[in-house]
Amino acid sequence: MSTEQFTSTQKRLAEFFGSATLVFVIVSSGLLADGMLEASPSIGVLFIGLATAGWLFVLVQMLGPISGAHLNPAVTVALLVTGDTDMKTARQYVPVQFLGGLIGVGLAGLTFVSTIGWEVFAISAVERPASTWLAEFLGTMLLASAIISLIRQDSEWIGLAVGFTVGMGIIGTASTAFFNPQVALARVFTSGIAGIQPFDAVMFMVASTFGGVAAGFMWRYLWPRPSLIGKQEPKPDDDSVLEELATET
Amino acid sequence: MSTEQFTSTQKRLAEFFGSATLVFVIVSSGLLADGMLEASPSIGVLFIGLATAGWLFVLVQMLGPISGAHLNPAVTVALLVTGDTDMKTARQYVPVQFLGGLIGVGLAGLTFVSTIGWEVFAISAVERPASTWLAEFLGTMLLASAIISLIRQDSEWIGLAVGFTVGMGIIGTASTAFFNPQVALARVFTSGIAGIQPFDAVMFMVASTFGGVAAGFMWRYLWPRPSLIGKQEPKPDDDSVLEELATET
Amino acid sequence: MSTEQFTSTQKRLAEFFGSATLVFVIVSSGLLADGMLEASPSIGVLFIGLATAGWLFVLVQMLGPISGAHLNPAVTVALLVTGDTDMKTARQYVPVQFLGGLIGVGLAGLTFVSTIGWEVFAISAVERPASTWLAEFLGTMLLASAIISLIRQDSEWIGLAVGFTVGMGIIGTASTAFFNPQVALARVFTSGIAGIQPFDAVMFMVASTFGGVAAGFMWRYLWPRPSLIGKQEPKPDDDSVLEELATET
Amino acid sequence: MSTEQFTSTQKRLAEFFGSATLVFVIVSSGLLADGMLEASPSIGVLFIGLATAGWLFVLVQMLGPISGAHLNPAVTVALLVTGDTDMKTARQYVPVQFLGGLIGVGLAGLTFVSTIGWEVFAISAVERPASTWLAEFLGTMLLASAIISLIRQDSEWIGLAVGFTVGMGIIGTASTAFFNPQVALARVFTSGIAGIQPFDAVMFMVASTFGGVAAGFMWRYLWPRPSLIGKQEPKPDDDSVLEELATET
Repeated sequence: MSTEQFTSTQKRLAEFFGSATLVFVIVSSGLLADGMLEASPSIGVLFIGLATAGWLFVLVQMLGPISGAHLNPAVTVALLVTGDTDMKTARQYVPVQFLGGLIGVGLAGLTFVSTIGWEVFAISAVERPASTWLAEFLGTMLLASAIISLIRQDSEWIGLAVGFTVGMGIIGTASTAFFNPQVALARVFTSGIAGIQPFDAVMFMVASTFGGVAAGFMWRYLWPRPSLIGKQEPKPDDDSVLEELATET
Repeated sequence: MSTEQFTSTQKRLAEFFGSATLVFVIVSSGLLADGMLEASPSIGVLFIGLATAGWLFVLVQMLGPISGAHLNPAVTVALLVTGDTDMKTARQYVPVQFLGGLIGVGLAGLTFVSTIGWEVFAISAVERPASTWLAEFLGTMLLASAIISLIRQDSEWIGLAVGFTVGMGIIGTASTAFFNPQVALARVFTSGIAGIQPFDAVMFMVASTFGGVAAGFMWRYLWPRPSLIGKQEPKPDDDSVLEELATET
Repeated sequence: MSTEQFTSTQKRLAEFFGSATLVFVIVSSGLLADGMLEASPSIGVLFIGLATAGWLFVLVQMLGPISGAHLNPAVTVALLVTGDTDMKTARQYVPVQFLGGLIGVGLAGLTFVSTIGWEVFAISAVERPASTWLAEFLGTMLLASAIISLIRQDSEWIGLAVGFTVGMGIIGTASTAFFNPQVALARVFTSGIAGIQPFDAVMFMVASTFGGVAAGFMWRYLWPRPSLIGKQEPKPDDDSVLEELATET
Repeated sequence: MSTEQFTSTQKRLAEFFGSATLVFVIVSSGLLADGMLEASPSIGVLFIGLATAGWLFVLVQMLGPISGAHLNPAVTVALLVTGDTDMKTARQYVPVQFLGGLIGVGLAGLTFVSTIGWEVFAISAVERPASTWLAEFLGTMLLASAIISLIRQDSEWIGLAVGFTVGMGIIGTASTAFFNPQVALARVFTSGIAGIQPFDAVMFMVASTFGGVAAGFMWRYLWPRPSLIGKQEPKPDDDSVLEELATET
């Protein structure tokens, strides 16, 4: 993705808008199912998973060409390990990711004030016990792995891959797939089923960051940065221009 | 999308057919779940969300090359703000979008007359209170944002992005995602769970239109119209044809 | 799709295999949900819709390059009206489509003999009353419309469009989306929730065939066969080869 | 897929990582729905189906360029029959596929130890009676067929096709879609709804392997290996380079 055309302010706005919208849809779908439609817990989690899969796909498609659509400090860290991003970018992105998430949980709550009431805002008491931290580590490792491999392939499928890894992780893992430190922090501030109590949020933040780091190192071995399969730029050589053309297609 | 090949009558027919089909599937899936299959409210909303995601994707894929597949006055307005469409087109599209929606809700009701009865036609009494208007504003802003960005990218993923933004918004937002003034009007005229009482429909129409306008202005800053990343036509210059060829690929 | 490479026997085998698999998954998912898992009717229909969407997408992707993956006499008829197929092909395809469907419902039943018993085979008594015939007409019109438009665009999305039109039509229309005469016939021979009583099957066959014909005529006006937007072959002209190359990209 | 760039160790790591993750998500989504959220059996199967569809798609997209992303001995066998892979590769892949699956079921159980307890590890007693073995044969035949055809087409849709064939097979077939001998073995070692008792696992392994073989022979007739539709490399001939260029586009 060639993002050189955009200013760092535009990129930070993209990361902010995307991070806020991601948290918005996670919290909002949970409040809709559980608070308004009185769904069973499993249908509530299904709502969150499908809604997140859909909108996260859209966010990556929409913002990818601008900022790379990390929206997730653990992804930014993984791309630091592989060399796909740099410290300057990381320092610009991570604060607006966290800020976006907090705005997102606030906006989501506001849209339910008329139907559920102000009690949507609360410090969550939902427990996420120790074995689910392992799920966060493994799941974030898969998420970052998918992103790194699809960057290597210069693939158009990265949006769907990110959306499905997180969204279907929500209905597929013991932690219901946060896989994202800023999302873990933001989800402390809701009374809905998407919440997480503060201590467990800290553990999720640690586990998902380590998952990103682990993926970064695995892919430094599996597919290091310079090698691009089937997408290599034509190497300048001594052959005539015409021969070079003949081998491209 | 190069739509110059089609006459304005063909384009208006495409907008009419698409708008009618969009409302048809929203109302019909709700009647099927709630009126025929006696599903719980949450499963009813899930039916509407998934069915709308699927068919709206199909409509955009099918009609996009002909009319641009707006099917939504708020999208037409957003594209007016960014300069991606013009007033003449807007004046042609918006009336047939509203007309299509009304035909769509009528046809949907007709297909349930044998199983549910003529009471499917009614002025809806379903309330959509004030905080859900904010959800309409925010959701339509996301929808229009996705469309504008994917137009900028000349992306093939626009159909899936539109389908998932609306369809997964239905299970992900406090308003169950109308995001479309003509849909809000049409859904007044059904007794099903997809309905909306008249006053709230007016507020939804206002909120979604403002959401489209807000997205238009945001993207005038984030990614204004002339800049097309990676899709630029080769500029004519003084270099030889062969050199030009060598840099393309 | 260039299908000239395949013999008519290979094409007929593809149509047979695809038609059988399509009916297999429709009937099988219904028996699984209703007969084995004791799901509620709405969850049963959701199973059928999602499973059909997924597998029909796969069948079109897999068999499209061989036979065009009609799998549906109403689609074959629609493509006759638009001139996208010919009578000789239609005469070869339609009998194996019907035969495939009958084999499909038989195999689906066999896979449930140990768990549900031989009563899976029966003449269905499920009623599909008159207003649902209108849903069949409208839905098949949409299905054939999507196929014709995506053929015009030479689009890679045709598999997903076909899968989603039918699969999400199952949870989105009063008829639960047969949209296919051979499927209507085959589904007479099952005791499951996917069944249809013989008289209604005949009416569904008529309605879906008319839907295909109506779509064919609509698209003869909206987008007749010779015009391919943005996919036109370079016209031979008097300019040099190099100039021609320079304008392609 | 050009996988020549990767070492056999990298390829085996990819097969191991993918096989483990595939089993992980199947077992984990079942434990989440049934053990933690107390979902009904049908919703439990829906969780497994959707989660598997999503993550398997991601795994194929992510690992396809490295190892081909078989993750399934029956697929490896099918590709042996068609000549798309060789015995040396098969001997390297199959053991790590089985090993990966066993690690995957172990990790999935570990993530539920705090919430469900150590009883997640058990020899399964879930029966999968005789008629479901036919479902395994037919479903694996479809899975391998889809893979072979999409390899022939050099299609980018292979990830989605594999994910949807298996994932929607889970909610669409009498066997709830194992379609994979290593998955059948691994799922012996869980107490969850995704389990299978040892004898039936052996029968599933046999049935799915035969399904792969049958698909291989069918496609040796339908679309043998050398013919690539529309993707043929330019044949070297006596014409000038320029003429060759003019015919490519």
